[in-house]
Order: sequence, then C-alpha cells, then structure tokens
Amino acid sequence: MEDWSKYYASRTSRMTASDIREILKLLDQPDIISFAGGIPDPALFPKKEIAAAYQNILTDPKRSTAALQYAVSEGYQPLREWLAGYMAKLGVQCTADNILITNGSQQALDFIGKLFISPGDTVLVGWPTYLGALQAFNAYEPVYDVLPGPDNNRTPESYGGPGHSKPKFAYSMPEFQNPTGTSLTLEQRKQLLDVADIIDVPIIEDTAYEKLRYDGDRVPSIMQIAVERAGGIDNCKVIYLGTFSKSIVPALRIGWVVAPKPVLRKLVLIKQASDLHVSPLNQMVMHEVASAIIEPHTELIRKKYKTRRDAMLKAMATYMPKDVSWTKPEGGMFLWVTLPQHIDGSELLKTAIEKARVAFVPGAAFYADRSGHNTIRLNFSLNDPPVIEEGIKRLAGLLQDAKAAA
Amino acid sequence: MEDWSKYYASRTSRMTASDIREILKLLDQPDIISFAGGIPDPALFPKKEIAAAYQNILTDPKRSTAALQYAVSEGYQPLREWLAGYMAKLGVQCTADNILITNGSQQALDFIGKLFISPGDTVLVGWPTYLGALQAFNAYEPVYDVLPGPDNNRTPESYGGPGHSKPKFAYSMPEFQNPTGTSLTLEQRKQLLDVADIIDVPIIEDTAYEKLRYDGDRVPSIMQIAVERAGGIDNCKVIYLGTFSKSIVPALRIGWVVAPKPVLRKLVLIKQASDLHVSPLNQMVMHEVASAIIEPHTELIRKKYKTRRDAMLKAMATYMPKDVSWTKPEGGMFLWVTLPQHIDGSELLKTAIEKARVAFVPGAAFYADRSGHNTIRLNFSLNDPPVIEEGIKRLAGLLQDAKAAA
Repeated sequence: MEDWSKYYASRTSRMTASDIREILKLLDQPDIISFAGGIPDPALFPKKEIAAAYQNILTDPKRSTAALQYAVSEGYQPLREWLAGYMAKLGVQCTADNILITNGSQQALDFIGKLFISPGDTVLVGWPTYLGALQAFNAYEPVYDVLPGPDNNRTPESYGGPGHSKPKFAYSMPEFQNPTGTSLTLEQRKQLLDVADIIDVPIIEDTAYEKLRYDGDRVPSIMQIAVERAGGIDNCKVIYLGTFSKSIVPALRIGWVVAPKPVLRKLVLIKQASDLHVSPLNQMVMHEVASAIIEPHTELIRKKYKTRRDAMLKAMATYMPKDVSWTKPEGGMFLWVTLPQHIDGSELLKTAIEKARVAFVPGAAFYADRSGHNTIRLNFSLNDPPVIEEGIKRLAGLLQDAKAAA
Repeated sequence: MEDWSKYYASRTSRMTASDIREILKLLDQPDIISFAGGIPDPALFPKKEIAAAYQNILTDPKRSTAALQYAVSEGYQPLREWLAGYMAKLGVQCTADNILITNGSQQALDFIGKLFISPGDTVLVGWPTYLGALQAFNAYEPVYDVLPGPDNNRTPESYGGPGHSKPKFAYSMPEFQNPTGTSLTLEQRKQLLDVADIIDVPIIEDTAYEKLRYDGDRVPSIMQIAVERAGGIDNCKVIYLGTFSKSIVPALRIGWVVAPKPVLRKLVLIKQASDLHVSPLNQMVMHEVASAIIEPHTELIRKKYKTRRDAMLKAMATYMPKDVSWTKPEGGMFLWVTLPQHIDGSELLKTAIEKARVAFVPGAAFYADRSGHNTIRLNFSLNDPPVIEEGIKRLAGLLQDAKAAA
C-alpha cells in the first residue's frame, strides 16, 4: 500500500478518531445500557410533522423547484427571517442579514476555526469543553488556554504573560455545558464579557442545549448582554451558535450562526467555498416544522428529559460511593462525574462494558490537554428511568468493588 | 463597528466573493437570458420519485428513526454499498470501505484541501480550472502551478525547478471540464498518470459531469486506469469525486469520494470534525431514487441537454464574428469562448447585461492567476433552443458592434 502520509498537511497529525464516535459504533448490542451518546430520544421526533412538511413542499410546483435546485449560501430567506424573530424573543435584536444557516452547529465550529485560527494561535476553551469543538478547531492547529471562569482565578494579565500568545477567541457553552451540564450565572456571564473586553477577544457562544432547561429561570445569553452593552448587534463582539438538533431533530442538519454583519459576510464566503449551501429542501422543512411546533414540542422534550435527569440524580445519590461526586444540572443532557483520583475513566469504561454492560464517555476526551483522567460523562436523555436506575446501580457496583479491592 | 480583521486567520485574505454567485444573485430579472449558472434544468428534476421516497422512509417506523437521528460520519451503509456497485460498473473495483458520502463534491474539494495543503504547498490545477475548486483550496493557502496536460509542454523536471516547491496533488476534471467543456483522451489520461507518477503526486479526479455525455464513446476514468495499473484500489494514487447534483438533483447535497482506505479513513475524521455527517434522511432518499432511476433518468437529461448544446453550437457558428473561437464539447454544460485579445470578458458582461440582457461568466475567474481576460463561459443546460439562439444572437451582435467600433 502507498504511503500517503508524506502528502498530508501538517494539521493531519492532530486528526484522531473521536472516543465518543468510536464507542458509539460498538453500542449496537442490545444488552448494553448506554449513557455514552449525546443523542436525543428518537421517540420524541416529530415524524408526522416532518413527513407532512416534505410532502407539502415537494407537491407544490413552485416550492419544490426552489427546494431541489442550487441555492444561495446564506440560507433560505424565510428561515433566516423566522430565526431573526426567534432571536428577538430570546432578547437578541438582529435581522436576517446577521444569520447564516449551517449543517448543524458542528459546521459553525469548523467555520469559526477557519475564520480565526492561524497555526499556533491561542484559543480559550473550558477545561473540560465540548469534544466536537476541539476536533473542529484542531484542524486549524491552535494551542489552547483556559477560558476565564468560575473554575479558575485567571486574571486578564495572565493571558498576555510569557508563554501565552494573545488569544484569538474564547469558546463558551454557558447553558448546560457539554460535558458538565453546568451553566454560567448572569454574574459569571458578565464577568466573562468583562475579561474578554479587557483581553480583547470575541466570544463564541454555543447554545446547543438552550431549549433544554428543566429548573430555574432563564439567564440572558452572553450575546444578549453584549448587544445591550454595545448598543446593537453589529457593534458587539459575540458570535452565537444555535441548532435544531436537540429541539427538533439532528438529521436535517440545520444550525445557525448569529453574528455582526462583517463577520457574517466572511462566514458566508466560507460556507460557499466549503459546500455551497445547506439543502434548501431541509431548510424549508425545518422552517415549516419549527415555526409551527418548536415551543409545544420542546415542552414535551423538557418534561421527558426532566424525569430522566431526576431519575439519574436519584440513582446517583442512592447507589454511588461517598468518594464519587457529580454535577446537578438544571438542564441539558449530561451529568459530569468525578471519581476518586486513583480511578481512570478509560479503564473503568472497559470494565464497565465487559462486566456491567454499561457505557459512558471517559472525561479525558473533553480536556484539551487530555487531563481529567478520573472524570466521566453520563447522558440521561436517551433511557427511561428504570433503565437509568439499573445502569447507575451497575456502575456504582463496579466502583464499590474497585473500592473494596483497593 | 468593531474591526474584526485583526482577529482573522491569515487565510481569510484569500476569501473573496465568487464572481459566479454574485452574478447569479442579480439574475432574477425575467427578461435576462442567462448563460451564467452551471445549474441543471429544474424541469428535469424527478420530483415524484423524490417525494415518494421521503414519504416511504418517513412513514416506515424503523427507517424513519434512523433517517432522523445522528449517524456515522462515513455515510449511509446501503448507499455506500450501492455506490461500490455503481463504481464497479464504471470499471473501478472497490468496496463500501473506500467510499465517503459528502455534501456534494464541493465539500469533498474542501476536505481534499484540508487533508493535503499546508500553507505555501503547490497544487497543480488546470489553466483554467473549476472556480469552486480554487475557492475550496484557497482556504488552505496553496500556490498554484499548471497541471501537466495537452495545453502545455511541461516536463516532469519543470515541477522541481527553482521557484517550484514539490506539488502536493494534481486536480483534474477529465470529462467535460468546467469551464471549458473539453475532455482528456485516453492517451492524455495515461500521460497525466505517467507524469504524476514521475513527480510523485496523487491525482484528484473530479467527475461532476460524468453522466452528461452526448457524443463519442466513454473513456475510462483516471481512477480506473490507475487501479488497473496498481493492481487494486488501495494501491493506487487517485482520489475520485462523484456527485448526484447533475444526474439527479443538487439540493439533497449528496456527493461521494472513492479513495484508498488509508486516505478514506482520514477523510472520515475530517467529515466528523467538519459537520458530523450528511443528513441520513437525504442519503436514504438518494439511495432509493438513484438506485431506481439513475440510468433512464440521465438518458432523459442527456437527450434534452444535447439538443441545447447543438442549438448553442449552431447559433455560435451562425452569428459569431470570425475572430471568436469556442470549444465543441462532447458533454457537460458549458462552451468556452475565446474572444479577440482586446476584448475583456468582465467589461463585455457589463455591456451584455445592460444593452443585450444576456449574462455569462467572465473567464478570468477560472484562472488561478486571474489571466484569460478575453475568455467567457457559456452554459447551455438551462435554456430551450429558441432562447439559446436569441441569446447568442444578441451576444454576437454586441461583439460585431465592438468590432465595428474598434
């Protein structure tokens, strides 16, 4: 076989298989209880509404032609306009000209990397942070530094010190972060904006789980605060990433970016060169479905996932040994578990699949430096409460055994 | 407004609006005869079959769940298997493990850039070449050099001389090239492979117009020849890009890459980090539609486009001044026109839209060095013969006027 590596770009050395996706491939066996994926419950997919929308559009002579032809890179205009209204309800005043449609928010993360990162540039991320963001950014060869936040006492000055290049942007998921499930308070969001202002970096705000709040009051988005401070979206320094993957379905691959116009125009050029545009048919269907049902539908999702989060928290409290701790998220899809220092998440996963038939994602994958070996991420959105209880019980049993053996 | 440019990566300096797409936006006026786009005739879209496929899949309880959920990055397995069979009929023996599904072949071009190009690397392209390939590659900051071929007498040695870094890959569209409409003969394909072998570069073979042959016999693809020479796909050094955009519809955004397994595995990682996967619903629909109708359907397309190509060639011969020359393509969607040296394609476009209400794409956009100022690209796939004749007559009239004025 030919040796291709000599032809590859230097960035490919950082392209490695995702732990999550590789594990997900192995989870076809029906006897495994999986807390691994970050995937929505398919029983909640609005199949009828989606099927009807495809039929409506494809049997309409005029709309079907637009739905099946090449289209502009910005996205389907009525969807962008609807999203501008949706953003206004979330407190962010903008127009369709501030909105680009992407293939889910994963593509937006790739575009952010493409737009901002030259090799060696510093990017600020959570420690831990969303694995998919690290994968998207890695292609552009950044170095990572720690996002200012409640988990550290970084001063603005520390970002300019020796060994630190000036960061290009800060990436934050302030609501029910993947992987920890935790959120930033209003005060913490303001502090993040203050530090970003001092060290002069834009903030990328990823809101993938925004609709999945089960308790507590809504907190204004970072972009909302920034737009209010700046006196208008085109003067703010925040880029907002939204997606329908968690609120409607993932498979239409529809996300959106909200950004000041000059940035948006650059992102449109990137979209054009990357894959021309998102399927106009899928955009039209998402427009029809989301505008009709997003609020009642996400209410259903929240009800269902809340009982599952509660079931997992209850099972954790009931079964876990005392030296294990975990987050209590107000929303999202995940619990983040800290194990005793001597337990390695990856090792535990092997034992868990083999002996307890339970799967999860080892936490190290979510750290830019692959630290956090004694952490794991548990998903609660996919399984019913009795399955959740059984899975946590089995996992806790393994940890009790490990303790007894130690 | 904030100055964002200080945050941007260096690659953004090469991201400029596409002439074609910017012009296309202006062509809504119904009195303009447009030869500008490279878009298929929507009257030929198999709407009924597509609508039926969406309905079949979305009303099937099991398939609808898979269609709407997150999926593997490689693509929908039955589509990949069908494509392996399709490639075998085209003379390329491969398996599903050699195939990745992408958002049209534009995304494959982006991935090729991401995989191979470090800033400053040399890429060999046609002079002219497909504009979208230049846009996709530009994000990775290559320099361009001339693809070895019938239009030049480059020796293999000339690629290693002073001022030339060793090329990373050669990009070729051997069938009905966009923009010229010309094809490489079997002998020319073999010569290209010979030179690529000597200078040690892989070939990227873009087959976007492969199904649109109106005359002449099919010529084996570069990949077919390379696989035969190498004794198997995994030993060859060609990457093949296919798409359904021209043979079925563009808007489902389904293309595919065929590559040796080690390369394919890298491309899968790139797909995962870039946008996870293509819509599984769209992949399932394309699988159902393409496997049922691709041969009879493309026969219809060929019949229709052939009459249009013939109409354009006839009108060109009838109306154009003697100092204008053009290609006589055996397939595809385009004629490539060379004007007298003193006429600039961009200037002509302005006059043509204003005075003759005819649009086309100036040829300079297709040259990596923006040369070829006296060339233009004419599309013949979208308009009926009488409209084509009228448009060419108007355009020829302008050129006659220019001549008279000169």
